[in-house]
Amino acid sequence: RIDGQRLWDSLMQLAQVGATPKGGVCRLALTDLDRQGRDLFTRWAREAGCEVRVDAIGNIFARRRGRDNALPPVTTGSHIDTQPTGGKFDGNYGVLAGLEVVRALNDAGVVTEAPLEVAVWTNEEGSRFVPVMMGSGVFADAFTLEHALAQRDNDGVSVSDALAAIGYAGSAPASAAASPVGAYFEAHIEQGPVLEANERVIGVVEGALGQRWYDVVVQGMEAHAGPTPMELRKDALLPASELVIEVNRIALAHAPHARGTVGWIENYPNSRNVIPGRVRLSVDLRAADDVVLSAMDAALKEAVQRIAAKAKVEMTVEQVVYFPPQPFTPKLVSAVRDAAQAQGLTWMNVISGAGHDAVYLARVCPAAMIFVPCLDGISHNEIEDAQPEHLEAGCNILLQAMLQSAGV
Amino acid sequence: RIDGQRLWDSLMQLAQVGATPKGGVCRLALTDLDRQGRDLFTRWAREAGCEVRVDAIGNIFARRRGRDNALPPVTTGSHIDTQPTGGKFDGNYGVLAGLEVVRALNDAGVVTEAPLEVAVWTNEEGSRFVPVMMGSGVFADAFTLEHALAQRDNDGVSVSDALAAIGYAGSAPASAAASPVGAYFEAHIEQGPVLEANERVIGVVEGALGQRWYDVVVQGMEAHAGPTPMELRKDALLPASELVIEVNRIALAHAPHARGTVGWIENYPNSRNVIPGRVRLSVDLRAADDVVLSAMDAALKEAVQRIAAKAKVEMTVEQVVYFPPQPFTPKLVSAVRDAAQAQGLTWMNVISGAGHDAVYLARVCPAAMIFVPCLDGISHNEIEDAQPEHLEAGCNILLQAMLQSAGV
Ligand SMILES: NC(=O)NCCC(=O)O
Ligand SMILES: NC(=O)NCCC(=O)O
Repeated sequence: RIDGQRLWDSLMQLAQVGATPKGGVCRLALTDLDRQGRDLFTRWAREAGCEVRVDAIGNIFARRRGRDNALPPVTTGSHIDTQPTGGKFDGNYGVLAGLEVVRALNDAGVVTEAPLEVAVWTNEEGSRFVPVMMGSGVFADAFTLEHALAQRDNDGVSVSDALAAIGYAGSAPASAAASPVGAYFEAHIEQGPVLEANERVIGVVEGALGQRWYDVVVQGMEAHAGPTPMELRKDALLPASELVIEVNRIALAHAPHARGTVGWIENYPNSRNVIPGRVRLSVDLRAADDVVLSAMDAALKEAVQRIAAKAKVEMTVEQVVYFPPQPFTPKLVSAVRDAAQAQGLTWMNVISGAGHDAVYLARVCPAAMIFVPCLDGISHNEIEDAQPEHLEAGCNILLQAMLQSAGV
Repeated sequence: RIDGQRLWDSLMQLAQVGATPKGGVCRLALTDLDRQGRDLFTRWAREAGCEVRVDAIGNIFARRRGRDNALPPVTTGSHIDTQPTGGKFDGNYGVLAGLEVVRALNDAGVVTEAPLEVAVWTNEEGSRFVPVMMGSGVFADAFTLEHALAQRDNDGVSVSDALAAIGYAGSAPASAAASPVGAYFEAHIEQGPVLEANERVIGVVEGALGQRWYDVVVQGMEAHAGPTPMELRKDALLPASELVIEVNRIALAHAPHARGTVGWIENYPNSRNVIPGRVRLSVDLRAADDVVLSAMDAALKEAVQRIAAKAKVEMTVEQVVYFPPQPFTPKLVSAVRDAAQAQGLTWMNVISGAGHDAVYLARVCPAAMIFVPCLDGISHNEIEDAQPEHLEAGCNILLQAMLQSAGV
């Protein structure tokens, strides 16, 4: 069994790097704070007897040798970059839970058949550089290394230069083809309210929702709110509002595992006594099944056409992101479930609503995830919080599942 | 009859002061450009034989003496300050139409019984200093001189200092009680599409809509758009969108002279994959009848309560502006209508949807307005445009109406 106190202490120590006054963490990808966090992890991993290698996109792999080192490793991990107003657990938990598994096996003197690895994936958050989940995306060949290295932040600094500046432009190939993975597990806080609402400690993650993101533009005609009668208006905010409601309706109509969100809206000229002339908004649709996601896509486009025709305005909709739904590997999912059952923990099957490094890894190796609750389901927020005993429980499940995959 | 070419030439000359590359005018209240515009008007007025006085809030009055100078003057005017991206006609037309009336009477050698005055009201637009219609508001005792003088722009400059800096801090009392007005007429572009849609040249303005402006705040809970199921959300943008639709419905339900507009909306944190946690929006309700406006106010508050209860979010609504509907003086309105009829012009009765200096003047003296069409109803925009023959026609109506009020 793992040492919950040691895991918690490591989490709190890593959270000092980039700590914010409100109790959160600001440790953007490939900044000097990210370097400090990486250096701390690397030191801890070496102290735990691991060999550390860094690949060309800056992913770190800490390897604990097994009996048969020709076998592909059983890998775990996550990320240590954070949102600008991030918390102590998102990503960090998955990495340090992996480290704690290594430490616990050292304490117990256990040697696994296959080697174990703990991965720190570069720039999962996508706050400083897009695309999100960059390190695991390159590793899983979702996009090329060259594409990723060429991305620039708002100050014009490229990923390539930022990696070199912090000393993490590694020489290992960033590719699952070159470095095959035997199995991948990722422990993560849920970032949602489902476990808490159902009073369960372990989320057995069966897969991740597919995602389609869109940009919508409504082109009306701005005019003075006083002298312009209702019937002579082309108010762009009115059809935009109808679409917001429709997006919610589409998600509800495709329950249970469907989501529809308008998170971003820009109104022009945005003046109290001017009828809005142009509105731009984002739509984020998610579903567990690609057939359902396609149906939601069709419903969105139908709604846009219908609303535009009724309002006599121009509306355009453009898809900007697509992730297909990603089921995790049944055998690994069962291993997680069996471990939760065996340890007498409350658990439930869940589907990850968010993208994670494990979602890319699942394209190139068997993969599964373990969720633990976070307070009020809040994440990407400095007040993000989780209970030590839940974090400990999730780490014990991770230990069990990795041992089963690696063989003792 | 007035000289349409001279009126047009004066408009074009004044439009040079603060001219923008896109053909508009940027001449903010109490800036040096405003001073240049005021100086030009004052020079023209003196050249036309007028006495000029300036009051304590910077309103300019150019007086053409009558036979009986003990009688209160028949006054016309408007403003020459503009929006940052303003046009050549909004306000400027009313001032220069007044000047043209004086010039035409000079040419014809006509002396009126009562004196005539052309007023330039300070800071009608409210772009640099709030409140809007400041000069006429002080004159009509809607708020105090001290309140107005103490207002500051975004750079911290007070109205008082700005007036002194441009040399227009006058000594005449800014008060209709001290300087009674016999009758007030204001010619203005419509700033709306009704005359154009109805192919009429003259709008006989019977009054101005009452206005109630509100700030609405919707307090939900921000959360990650992926992991948060639809039924566990408190999406603030969803009830906000329902309110936008409801505001339009309320206005349509109180047709014909009702308006409802949400012109401004602010969404927080406004990120594509975050469920909106807080939305602030403005509501602008207008109606011709105060009973109707009160009914709309009640309907708004009922809608806010109903939507908040359904969405299980907090919603607050706070009124920030109130103008009662302002009927114009029937005798003066008839004078405008009769003149249009007599001159064989197409006309229609209209209600001003926007606030104007005449709306404040109507609180302290008989008042009426004359509207002429503007291209596509567009105003507060550099592309604001109007036809010379329409401007000429409106000015001829103004001449006629002023002569009738002043007596020949
Ligand atoms: N875990 C996470 O926040 N991923 C970002 C992409 C998403 O919205 O799912
Ligand atoms: N004429 C004008 O734009 N007035 C400003 C106040 C209003 O919106 O009516």
